[in-house]
Amino acid sequence: MRARETAEITARAYGAAAPELTELLGDEAEPASSLAGLAAVEASALLCVGHEPTLSRLAGLLTSRDGSGRVEMAKSGVAIIECPGAMAPGRGVLRMHLRPAELTALLDAGAPAAADPSPDLFLGTMTAYQRSAALKGALDLDLFAVIGAGAGTVPALAERCAASPRGTRILCDYLTATGFLRKDRDAYALTPDSAVFLDRASPACVAGAAEFLYAPELREAFGDVAQAVRHGGTRLAATGTVTPEHPVWVRFARAMAPLMRMPARAVVGLVEVDAAAPLRVLDVAAGHGLFGLAFAQAYPRAEVTALDWPAVLVVAHENARAAGVDGRFHTLAGSAFETPLGGPYDLVLVPNFLHHFDPATCETFLGTVGRALAPGGRVVTVEFVPDEGRVTPPHAAMFSLVMLCTTPAGDAYTFAELESMFRRAGFPRNRLRVPGPAGPQVLISQR
Amino acid sequence: MRARETAEITARAYGAAAPELTELLGDEAEPASSLAGLAAVEASALLCVGHEPTLSRLAGLLTSRDGSGRVEMAKSGVAIIECPGAMAPGRGVLRMHLRPAELTALLDAGAPAAADPSPDLFLGTMTAYQRSAALKGALDLDLFAVIGAGAGTVPALAERCAASPRGTRILCDYLTATGFLRKDRDAYALTPDSAVFLDRASPACVAGAAEFLYAPELREAFGDVAQAVRHGGTRLAATGTVTPEHPVWVRFARAMAPLMRMPARAVVGLVEVDAAAPLRVLDVAAGHGLFGLAFAQAYPRAEVTALDWPAVLVVAHENARAAGVDGRFHTLAGSAFETPLGGPYDLVLVPNFLHHFDPATCETFLGTVGRALAPGGRVVTVEFVPDEGRVTPPHAAMFSLVMLCTTPAGDAYTFAELESMFRRAGFPRNRLRVPGPAGPQVLISQR
Repeated sequence: MRARETAEITARAYGAAAPELTELLGDEAEPASSLAGLAAVEASALLCVGHEPTLSRLAGLLTSRDGSGRVEMAKSGVAIIECPGAMAPGRGVLRMHLRPAELTALLDAGAPAAADPSPDLFLGTMTAYQRSAALKGALDLDLFAVIGAGAGTVPALAERCAASPRGTRILCDYLTATGFLRKDRDAYALTPDSAVFLDRASPACVAGAAEFLYAPELREAFGDVAQAVRHGGTRLAATGTVTPEHPVWVRFARAMAPLMRMPARAVVGLVEVDAAAPLRVLDVAAGHGLFGLAFAQAYPRAEVTALDWPAVLVVAHENARAAGVDGRFHTLAGSAFETPLGGPYDLVLVPNFLHHFDPATCETFLGTVGRALAPGGRVVTVEFVPDEGRVTPPHAAMFSLVMLCTTPAGDAYTFAELESMFRRAGFPRNRLRVPGPAGPQVLISQR
Repeated sequence: MRARETAEITARAYGAAAPELTELLGDEAEPASSLAGLAAVEASALLCVGHEPTLSRLAGLLTSRDGSGRVEMAKSGVAIIECPGAMAPGRGVLRMHLRPAELTALLDAGAPAAADPSPDLFLGTMTAYQRSAALKGALDLDLFAVIGAGAGTVPALAERCAASPRGTRILCDYLTATGFLRKDRDAYALTPDSAVFLDRASPACVAGAAEFLYAPELREAFGDVAQAVRHGGTRLAATGTVTPEHPVWVRFARAMAPLMRMPARAVVGLVEVDAAAPLRVLDVAAGHGLFGLAFAQAYPRAEVTALDWPAVLVVAHENARAAGVDGRFHTLAGSAFETPLGGPYDLVLVPNFLHHFDPATCETFLGTVGRALAPGGRVVTVEFVPDEGRVTPPHAAMFSLVMLCTTPAGDAYTFAELESMFRRAGFPRNRLRVPGPAGPQVLISQR
């Protein structure tokens, strides 16, 4: 009865003819007679739904001459067996064999299914703002740290977060359903990712990045995307986040530092430097200053100058002191476009800066940078670089919309576009380096 | 060389000892001697990395006595073979066998991988509000309809959407990266899902649901989740969305109707009705009225009474006229708790209503409903019903937070909780019916 229903549902899903009913795959069937019966069916492909252990034994017989083959078809499992000639013992080649767990995971991944059209992506995306809000709520309550410190049940968590048991239970269930917590009976626990990145007791905690990623300024910028698309740029006041001395950059410098430690080290690893020689580094729009500081920490003879708005440099200076390199840390306060850059420098770091401006502005700026470089000096640009098609990799492709909504003319530039800006600014030699799949993309440019 | 590197990477990923090197799995090995060699290794589990066709032949020998077993290990494929006793021909049971495509899809799904910890879920969730905002922007610009009508390039789309080419290009790329569009060179096209559900020319279009799912009232309710968790209920004014005559319900009735047509029909299919007999239906908090109207359309002798706030009933009435059943459509204006229900009714529909209130309020209300039922009458409740663990299925589990943030005491109730409310209200017989995996869950209750 159940096998019949399954077959009917499957046939409908694939737009196939109504299933044929047969006793050949019932619990009492002998594999040899099942096989003989199936071999008589005229079809180029057969989808068999049946009982156990009949299907396992049939699969075993198809894939071994003496019928000793042992392919365990777990209940709700699936196997694909290809029979190049006739359907006979040992003639089948097992192409795929999934247990229910893998099958479910594959269906969740949406990989092989040419399923019915579904509004699920629409519904999930339209309510995605609730996911951001829930996660921000958990961080505001310090929930991950409290769980990391050992509390697990709703009463214990509610007490330590100074929250209602009802609200705590609902939020923890939501975070479990969305992958941030595990739940075992009545106790919640951190996932490995949450333990490393969201528990404030973890040295790798990046939770503070929420203060920038979910900043009121950014949410306001996404308040009316249609208007930004109509206009072709931000609808925020003045020139959005590139307005001189915009306070969001102090927020950025404080919030994003933990997230940038790893990428900053990765960038150092990409730039070949003579450790014995002096190294003069300019860090443009330094923010937290971590890119420059990573060079200062790696090379004892490096002297680093950070350029940014005065209020932002306060944060970079704090980080320099914390890194124990403030003796070799200098600052240039003001606009990157108007402040004399000084120099000459061996390295000019341009981390996550160019994407805020249009190509002409970038070119002019890079020309100025070129004149501040020592002979043999290099520009190290950290960027979100989408592929030429502009829709991959996702994090780089999607970043373009952040620039549309927060700046008048910024963009995520392709390698070809960046290379063209650099060439025109006097840098004919440009190499793109990508340390990891989701890491920063790095352009190294020489005159 | 490559096999060796693969083995080393795998060993590191699983924290295992360094791999042993052997010629037993090279291209020239005979399956029988490979098997004999492996059988001599003392280990409870062996992870073998090797060459083809050696691994396929070894898998075949393990799963068939005569070595004729044919398990095709595609390059980069994986198989799990369990050997309950000694490792010998025919002693192995094939538990799982994945081709590279399934393996990749599984890894993408994050199912079996114990990968390095990653902040990606955090980053993606923290910026998820941008996805909602981008999709809403596309709907505001009527972008899907314009693409559905044949425009595909940035200049054509920008013109017809009255938008800037730059903004149009950036938004379309974002929508491609997030799965709503396809891009082929310079032309965008609708995905199958977008064509059915987001193009206003499609009869199944549900795009209007954004007006409710992304309503200002709902976004405001999610403005400070931590506060709602601390307090244990909504921080919206008065009693949130359950404040009498709250205008969000007119918005709901207009916006959600297209999304509810399919579920409403599914509910009709779950309730056995004598088509020849009269059928008196009360539709509580009817909203768009579609659940009641679906019964009116299915059963020509059905008379349907919709109960809701006066401004909401206007919308339900429009839908009744559009469905051609307004001659059998009646209304009861006011609060579901205070308005005399009339009756007796054969069916009382309670669609997506109970979750707004605490259990005691629900029980009292269901007692009133019981007194309005004809002998043999049934209550048909449509709900988001999470499993007992409260974290699956996701859409039902996550719905609880919507209630926390928008109502004083609402919740997504488990079947056990709903059954308990109904029992206390005089309904000992309750059955849960689930028409589809993401569809509504339906409780049918009798006295």
